[in-house]
Amino acid sequence: MIPGEPAHWERGGHKVLATTRVLELREVSFRHPKRGTQKDFMVAHAPDWVNVVARTPDDRIILVRQFRFGSNALSLEVPGGVIEKGEDPVHAGVRELLEETGYGGGTARLLGSVLPNPAIMDNRCHIILVDGAVPSGPMNWDPDEEIEVSLATVAQALDWARTGKITHSLSVAALMLFEGVRRV
Amino acid sequence: MIPGEPAHWERGGHKVLATTRVLELREVSFRHPKRGTQKDFMVAHAPDWVNVVARTPDDRIILVRQFRFGSNALSLEVPGGVIEKGEDPVHAGVRELLEETGYGGGTARLLGSVLPNPAIMDNRCHIILVDGAVPSGPMNWDPDEEIEVSLATVAQALDWARTGKITHSLSVAALMLFEGVRRV
Repeated sequence: MIPGEPAHWERGGHKVLATTRVLELREVSFRHPKRGTQKDFMVAHAPDWVNVVARTPDDRIILVRQFRFGSNALSLEVPGGVIEKGEDPVHAGVRELLEETGYGGGTARLLGSVLPNPAIMDNRCHIILVDGAVPSGPMNWDPDEEIEVSLATVAQALDWARTGKITHSLSVAALMLFEGVRRV
Repeated sequence: MIPGEPAHWERGGHKVLATTRVLELREVSFRHPKRGTQKDFMVAHAPDWVNVVARTPDDRIILVRQFRFGSNALSLEVPGGVIEKGEDPVHAGVRELLEETGYGGGTARLLGSVLPNPAIMDNRCHIILVDGAVPSGPMNWDPDEEIEVSLATVAQALDWARTGKITHSLSVAALMLFEGVRRV
């Protein structure tokens, strides 16, 4: 009843449906390797993103709250943003943390990576752990950003990710990866 | 240094940039309530989705592995799909579980909801817990689906979500919500 390995479709060319600041919407041609059938699928092409779990020396998680245009609502999240072309993910995480919250310092490392949505997006989101972050400089927001910075205990942040106060799936995933290494 | 409540922009009209089977890409006009500035932001409009954490009577999690066109790779995930218009999320989860895996029965309830990406998408993903799922009928795949069904222990599934074998952020979030209720 359970079939074998699902086929890996062969990706062909694409045409661009729309280009925005955030992503390029593409119609990509795929061919099934066995059936030979050809079909177009939508793929949103975007740069990789970074999300940051940053912990202060007194074991608090740095959170940001901002208006989100997709959900049309305020959203409580871990800091994050877009990795610049050629930028190292850890560097991007440290940069975004400082820009959005003014926190820096400590040590930073890659905690893991997830796919925002492998069904329809081609990018990855790297999760960076910053340990020992302290207030380090002025914030530097993008023109449309207004960010409320707050601190939560680790237990609070994990609880909020599980009970719907933190709802951004990438923040939830970031906190889950963090919880995994925290217990080691 | 920390500012007050971030403003809730006022959403105006939109124009459609592209329409696909999966989503409608919109350029939405927003107005800042204090500054009065007007600006367009990209929003992907899509129906709500459902992801299913399904557990068998012997405490195994049902996983699916399938080719994903966004990542251009095979992906190990929890079952899930698109909620039909007017469909109850729990019903949709039970339906998708049966269609994709042939498993059904037991009890089903809403575990929680996350936002796939509040920055650029307007939909939600509901996480359904099905407890006591057993082989219940034939699978019923969409024409382009080929799905490999497998079972993992709860410890395995959670470990895989934390260590990069399960990378879809919505599956990672679903398993994190499940872990929260499991320990109660």
